[in-house]
Amino acid sequence: MEGSEEDRERVGGNVLVHTGEGKGKTTSAVGQIIRAEGHGLNTRYISFFKGNEERFSRGIFKVMKKLGIPVRNFVHDHPDFGRTSEEEARNGCRKGLKYLNSLFRGEDEVPDLLALDEVNIALDGGWIEEEEFISLLEMKPDNLELICTGRGAPESLIAEADLVSRIENVKHFYDEGVVQRPGYEY
Amino acid sequence: MEGSEEDRERVGGNVLVHTGEGKGKTTSAVGQIIRAEGHGLNTRYISFFKGNEERFSRGIFKVMKKLGIPVRNFVHDHPDFGRTSEEEARNGCRKGLKYLNSLFRGEDEVPDLLALDEVNIALDGGWIEEEEFISLLEMKPDNLELICTGRGAPESLIAEADLVSRIENVKHFYDEGVVQRPGYEY
Repeated sequence: MEGSEEDRERVGGNVLVHTGEGKGKTTSAVGQIIRAEGHGLNTRYISFFKGNEERFSRGIFKVMKKLGIPVRNFVHDHPDFGRTSEEEARNGCRKGLKYLNSLFRGEDEVPDLLALDEVNIALDGGWIEEEEFISLLEMKPDNLELICTGRGAPESLIAEADLVSRIENVKHFYDEGVVQRPGYEY
Repeated sequence: MEGSEEDRERVGGNVLVHTGEGKGKTTSAVGQIIRAEGHGLNTRYISFFKGNEERFSRGIFKVMKKLGIPVRNFVHDHPDFGRTSEEEARNGCRKGLKYLNSLFRGEDEVPDLLALDEVNIALDGGWIEEEEFISLLEMKPDNLELICTGRGAPESLIAEADLVSRIENVKHFYDEGVVQRPGYEY
């Protein structure tokens, strides 16, 4: 189907979802932020489960901070790693939603592009209520492009999204016992 | 299958392939480079079909240059865009292979991570001979991690690779007539 004139002229404001089991969801969101920065757009990166201090001072976070991209995190680790309680995860996600709510209401400068890294995992695990998140999306400022990453994006989010990429794991060296490597996987 | 002790300790040196029709192949390679840079690794980015001057001075290229990441390109545009002849494409790809050959032979400092952006398209279109590229891979220095991006990765490359992600286009706003937008798609 050919789009309307309005669609053709639309710039920004889409909801993008990167999901699936394969490698490349977070890095793709970061690459999109880097590209947007290189075009002078205003970007932000929010993570839901990657915020322990060691992690946040290295790797992609270090470079994004160096580039002046605001980065923020709401939960230190996924509870599965055993260092964060379920309650801490739930409270952190709640704070994240509150932050989005105030951003969407225009209480803070609205960026052109905002990555919500691992938000799909928060939704899939029930740390964020699907219904609440979808209602929140309806308040999203028109020109804000949003990227939601993580495995297990719920159908309700896929239905709302303008673009959905699913990264399939065709072949992965973890299957051969290779462990996660700093600089390569995190 | 559990891997051997050797597998478990292996760091770097893998061949990664990002292919498929969905959005996120190049940006994922760029994100991986950004992450590696943030861990103090040595990275390089080579593009096969994204080198016209306007493009190379903006977006991801601008940010990578700012970060001191060596970027290089071998063909200005894909011949399909009508600004590059088939001969220019073939010659450019040949130069790219020569460059890789000399890098793999140790005639230049070997990085930890090298992205070959759109090399799959060069292989798929016959601009680079599959057999020649696969032979070249056998010369790859052990610690060099290589990312090959682009649609249409050939089976021979998939067979050689350690990790293959296929990005499926579940839903895409191009289908609704939205055109490519600077800062978002390029």
